[in-house]
Amino acid sequence: MACVNLVTLVALLEYFAFGYLVGWARGKYGVKAPAITGHEVFERYFRVQQNTLELLIAFIPALWIAAQYWNPTWIAAIGAVFIIGRLLYLRGYVGDPKGRSLGVGLSVLPILALIIAGVFGAVRALFAW
Amino acid sequence: MACVNLVTLVALLEYFAFGYLVGWARGKYGVKAPAITGHEVFERYFRVQQNTLELLIAFIPALWIAAQYWNPTWIAAIGAVFIIGRLLYLRGYVGDPKGRSLGVGLSVLPILALIIAGVFGAVRALFAW
Amino acid sequence: MACVNLVTLVALLEYFAFGYLVGWARGKYGVKAPAITGHEVFERYFRVQQNTLELLIAFIPALWIAAQYWNPTWIAAIGAVFIIGRLLYLRGYVGDPKGRSLGVGLSVLPILALIIAGVFGAVRALFAW
Repeated sequence: MACVNLVTLVALLEYFAFGYLVGWARGKYGVKAPAITGHEVFERYFRVQQNTLELLIAFIPALWIAAQYWNPTWIAAIGAVFIIGRLLYLRGYVGDPKGRSLGVGLSVLPILALIIAGVFGAVRALFAW
Repeated sequence: MACVNLVTLVALLEYFAFGYLVGWARGKYGVKAPAITGHEVFERYFRVQQNTLELLIAFIPALWIAAQYWNPTWIAAIGAVFIIGRLLYLRGYVGDPKGRSLGVGLSVLPILALIIAGVFGAVRALFAW
Repeated sequence: MACVNLVTLVALLEYFAFGYLVGWARGKYGVKAPAITGHEVFERYFRVQQNTLELLIAFIPALWIAAQYWNPTWIAAIGAVFIIGRLLYLRGYVGDPKGRSLGVGLSVLPILALIIAGVFGAVRALFAW
């Protein structure tokens, strides 16, 4: 499971980098804590980090469950697509909120694939096929 | 642990369904990204998804830890109560934010039960009773 | 891993306590759901809980992964620093948003230490050193 662990940790580092960008945008656009609104571009960075948080809560458990039933290397590869999808999401969203569809797709589809893989594996294990 | 994994994955699918409802409400009530305010009903859908996120971060680790120490089938059954509690929360909150108490109770109590079960199990294991 | 499980559960209980404070501040400062703005002090409690959520999503997976490769007692001790860091963050932030640096440091540094420990362990396992 070392490759699955590595993918998890890289996704967490990416998420921390997004959090760092939020702090940087807070300074640059003069949005003082605890405010989370006040400048359009700050709000985009904030939404990118929040949306990544919203997806990580599903991504990590789905990744770990799927890796119990399928080849961990393949599962880790699906996880790597999520990490790339988040980068494209950041680039798309900050440029223009309408240009975030590719990044959304490459983030959500890997998670759905992991959930489906996990459901198949767990149901199969439950009935000992 | 297949039943515990299944409960986890169904909870994640429910959470994704809530996320889909937020996107749908965004379109219906004309709240453009990255705004998260602007229409009362949109904000309710958004709060349901956010509150589910806030609980999932506790629910999943507590579920997995409790299942290490107790009968996984029973632990999965407690987890299923959480999933139903979230459905009642959605129905109650969107109808009227004051009508969400039953859904809150059936979401928070299972998590507290899982945490307490986990603490007992871990303390017992630590002292090798 | 009982000590790592205990640290996880105590961190979750602390997080629930922060959530309780948000509900209490909602009542005290008259911020009706689903609103999340309207009173400066309420917003601080809300941000403390949200920020703890944002960190827990990284803390728990990093803690569990690091404990697979290193002495669980030491890893649990790093986790305990996070729990204390969150308490200092609460005290600092609610008093004055500018006084939260110590709490931020004692929350973020343990997570980064756990991620680095996990990366080393996973890379070592991957190449079977």
